[in-house]
Amino acid sequence: MTKPIKDERCRLLVQCPDGPGIVSAISTFLLEHNANIIESSQYTSDPDYGTFFMRIEFHCKGLLEKRTKLEADFAELAAKFSMDYRFSYHHDIKRTAIFVSKDPHCLMELLWEWQSGDLETEIVCVISNHDDARELVESQGIPFHHTPANKDIREQAEAEQIRLMEEYNVDLLVLARYMQILTPAFVERFEDRIINIHHSFLPAFVGAKPYERAYDRGVKLIGATSHYVTNELDEGPIIEQDIERVDHRDHVDDLKKIGRKVERRVLANAVKWHLEDRVIVKDNKTIVFR
Amino acid sequence: MTKPIKDERCRLLVQCPDGPGIVSAISTFLLEHNANIIESSQYTSDPDYGTFFMRIEFHCKGLLEKRTKLEADFAELAAKFSMDYRFSYHHDIKRTAIFVSKDPHCLMELLWEWQSGDLETEIVCVISNHDDARELVESQGIPFHHTPANKDIREQAEAEQIRLMEEYNVDLLVLARYMQILTPAFVERFEDRIINIHHSFLPAFVGAKPYERAYDRGVKLIGATSHYVTNELDEGPIIEQDIERVDHRDHVDDLKKIGRKVERRVLANAVKWHLEDRVIVKDNKTIVFR
Amino acid sequence: MTKPIKDERCRLLVQCPDGPGIVSAISTFLLEHNANIIESSQYTSDPDYGTFFMRIEFHCKGLLEKRTKLEADFAELAAKFSMDYRFSYHHDIKRTAIFVSKDPHCLMELLWEWQSGDLETEIVCVISNHDDARELVESQGIPFHHTPANKDIREQAEAEQIRLMEEYNVDLLVLARYMQILTPAFVERFEDRIINIHHSFLPAFVGAKPYERAYDRGVKLIGATSHYVTNELDEGPIIEQDIERVDHRDHVDDLKKIGRKVERRVLANAVKWHLEDRVIVKDNKTIVFR
Amino acid sequence: MTKPIKDERCRLLVQCPDGPGIVSAISTFLLEHNANIIESSQYTSDPDYGTFFMRIEFHCKGLLEKRTKLEADFAELAAKFSMDYRFSYHHDIKRTAIFVSKDPHCLMELLWEWQSGDLETEIVCVISNHDDARELVESQGIPFHHTPANKDIREQAEAEQIRLMEEYNVDLLVLARYMQILTPAFVERFEDRIINIHHSFLPAFVGAKPYERAYDRGVKLIGATSHYVTNELDEGPIIEQDIERVDHRDHVDDLKKIGRKVERRVLANAVKWHLEDRVIVKDNKTIVFR
Repeated sequence: MTKPIKDERCRLLVQCPDGPGIVSAISTFLLEHNANIIESSQYTSDPDYGTFFMRIEFHCKGLLEKRTKLEADFAELAAKFSMDYRFSYHHDIKRTAIFVSKDPHCLMELLWEWQSGDLETEIVCVISNHDDARELVESQGIPFHHTPANKDIREQAEAEQIRLMEEYNVDLLVLARYMQILTPAFVERFEDRIINIHHSFLPAFVGAKPYERAYDRGVKLIGATSHYVTNELDEGPIIEQDIERVDHRDHVDDLKKIGRKVERRVLANAVKWHLEDRVIVKDNKTIVFR
Repeated sequence: MTKPIKDERCRLLVQCPDGPGIVSAISTFLLEHNANIIESSQYTSDPDYGTFFMRIEFHCKGLLEKRTKLEADFAELAAKFSMDYRFSYHHDIKRTAIFVSKDPHCLMELLWEWQSGDLETEIVCVISNHDDARELVESQGIPFHHTPANKDIREQAEAEQIRLMEEYNVDLLVLARYMQILTPAFVERFEDRIINIHHSFLPAFVGAKPYERAYDRGVKLIGATSHYVTNELDEGPIIEQDIERVDHRDHVDDLKKIGRKVERRVLANAVKWHLEDRVIVKDNKTIVFR
Repeated sequence: MTKPIKDERCRLLVQCPDGPGIVSAISTFLLEHNANIIESSQYTSDPDYGTFFMRIEFHCKGLLEKRTKLEADFAELAAKFSMDYRFSYHHDIKRTAIFVSKDPHCLMELLWEWQSGDLETEIVCVISNHDDARELVESQGIPFHHTPANKDIREQAEAEQIRLMEEYNVDLLVLARYMQILTPAFVERFEDRIINIHHSFLPAFVGAKPYERAYDRGVKLIGATSHYVTNELDEGPIIEQDIERVDHRDHVDDLKKIGRKVERRVLANAVKWHLEDRVIVKDNKTIVFR
Repeated sequence: MTKPIKDERCRLLVQCPDGPGIVSAISTFLLEHNANIIESSQYTSDPDYGTFFMRIEFHCKGLLEKRTKLEADFAELAAKFSMDYRFSYHHDIKRTAIFVSKDPHCLMELLWEWQSGDLETEIVCVISNHDDARELVESQGIPFHHTPANKDIREQAEAEQIRLMEEYNVDLLVLARYMQILTPAFVERFEDRIINIHHSFLPAFVGAKPYERAYDRGVKLIGATSHYVTNELDEGPIIEQDIERVDHRDHVDDLKKIGRKVERRVLANAVKWHLEDRVIVKDNKTIVFR
């Protein structure tokens, strides 16, 4: 047995009504197709009449040739259990676009993690409504597009952004402190594929100026939240949250400074888990198989 | 020099408009009165025209005899700098009443910390709108009073509670998961002397059923907040907050179980700091000199 | 389908050399025996030639009657895959003895968690080399045994303790700040069934007086470690660790006070996970399926 | 009163035997010299016969002109109380050299924090025993010096490094994962001015390969420690420590990856506090006035 080749790896994500025999059926299917389970996680939302969720990472010799047959065969099994499912091949590396406005810290953290090999993706472009980050981005060989945007030209801006998303064949959009609101049409086009970082511990301080409001309220911890974007502002499914301690000596600028550290690590975690197919969305919440 | 005797210790809390010479005046005053500074913290809200806050703990031989003169002399200095101030003598141990409803965990944590010598107070009584905790409380030699309370008999209940607070000469009221709302008249009578524990990370989930709402929102962290009670529900000055990590497997009951641990330690910290005169309230926020 | 009855629940713990078909075999076995998987976790130590570990919790109608046949049937499957395995029935509630010396905080935390229904166990007795905790323990209806112990009478003490463990038919021994060293004979008799709390972040400060040594070293965090006891002092498999922040103002007594909080929660977690069969020991380390 | 100009700020650090009148003397001295206290922290190691430590940040109009007289006047006061003291002027910005080997993450974090304006320093050069980081460093306009170093040529390497430290007039040396041991002569020359990051929770895993050893021991948390370098390996005064949670699934490479995040933030904090004159060394420990 030689070291599994990365291209021969795949992840299978399943959700279906719970019932007897699901794990047996899936694991027997994989065995019969000479696929070896590397990692497996499952969760049932409720022991009675709940939903069953599973993430299996497997290895299979000659996977790319077998792929069509594997999927065709699985379709039968899936039908029997009324499964929603998805095969995610390691070979089909996800293509990520990063949207940013002026603050570069979240963008930088993502580039850093990506350079360190911690993000399973190709960063295909960076889009910004300001030109500030151009040098930083282009110096790493990543295309940078300046698409001015504000309330009045939102639709034009989005038309151009959608064109770019299509041109680059983008799988994931990361809003790394992108300070523009997206239109419903845009959001729907990329359902569960836009990850945002909000600079508060949601649902506290939904909307604008969360650090200012945190300061005014006198909180003792500040937080950040990474979530999928939906058409309810800051109400999408939460992927990850974290906090840092602050005290009475910290003014708004200090909160922002401390908050940057939290934002960086919360967004980096959420993006990493999405790229590794660890996140399943259900009823505006996430199951995260860490 | 012998070991300082506890009765010879005192804390001086000061707030006044910032300006030159305050620290010099106070420290020189203490020197001239043969008082030795043990611990000192200060904070200025803004370098220009801000408010100056100070907490000094000092030791002074024969303090109890000198007390009247000390305070009289200080009044002059205080007038000069327009100080709000308070001497808090170690000898005048604070008298605490704990209010509880059905959940005993916060009450138990306080009793525990108190038995371990970690709370500088006398717990003079426990008040509850249920009779459940009687045995637990009385077994420790603490008087227990069952004062039934609900929306309809709120005023009667509070009349009895006020009578008890006066009878026991209470300095601090701790609402250790006391599930009744207090009237404005009650709250005003004990301004900055009622500490509550709210079972969420405020300002998220103000009001009822925070764990249920946290579950519905799919948060990844749950929190607790200890604050002084004001007449705005859950809007009083925050003393302490903390959180615990949860995930998709945690149902409402799990959140409550995990939350109990956070509530216990957040309330215990807030009460401890209040009793040690470490908390100053200003503009609906707290300065906490830890 | 009615709510699963607790007596019809069981956990199956497996470890064996990794290879194809294990999950399929186990899940198909359970399906054929009408057992429904409630929770399942697995881990492979290495994708090539590693060890496979699994914890499955399942529900099965009429489990207690089927139990003998179920185990007999599984023995065949287990032989085929060279499995080490164990069925742990919810019906066979584990019997726990707590050993304590003078400091009661860890004992109290366990009693508290147990009263709150958070520990799946019967606490059958408390053993101490001091008589201090008798009242606390007996007031809860738990037998208390004072078995004086020190270096010189270690063997006599242990003979009596072993007699008690047999009398009470004990499954788990928890050393809740029990300050005596156990002999190799004693430890071997209860392999992987004695849980200790050590008041440091192991492997720092192995042995006596860890807080004093932490103070002398000037550390900025103090910790606690819960581990299974082996015959190497403080070298057994670690189940859980945690820390608290301290600073230059904290003297040894403060470290002890802060440390008590960490010890309490670390030990309570380790005991809880052991009782829920979430911990597997392998090569002096633990797999903890949380 | 206009906004204090940064050049008119100074920090005074004092340690002396405790006794009456110190705070009064210092604060009165500052008042008489028209200096306004902005921030003040103090600590007494023991109420009886302990050491008194103080950090005062003050503002004084025309400070740079008054500086000589201020220091001359203070010398008298200092003599009276047998003070060790130091004036640290905001105007005399500290000059920092960063030493690095192959791993760039700590270097990058420092450059990042410095660019964001969070480090009060000039980074005057980066020294490395490898050439890898040259581009990263020079692209930011910082001189990079490749000084090959190993056991056999240690003295030559250090001679060159000392020459560079003198040429650049360096105040602080930061070992940002610099994997060479320094000679006693080198260390003594920069006493309390070399900050190292060790990739473990000291005193656990002193010396080489801490992540490998942490993996072998099966710890549940990994840590990092930033300390001043002394001639006892990894035994210098600790400035800051922190940890991250790991579990049985994390192999050595995962520990390193997770550890990098901890190392980055621990070192950045320690360097920041040193630069802000918040750290006082005493008896191989630190007082950190945060």
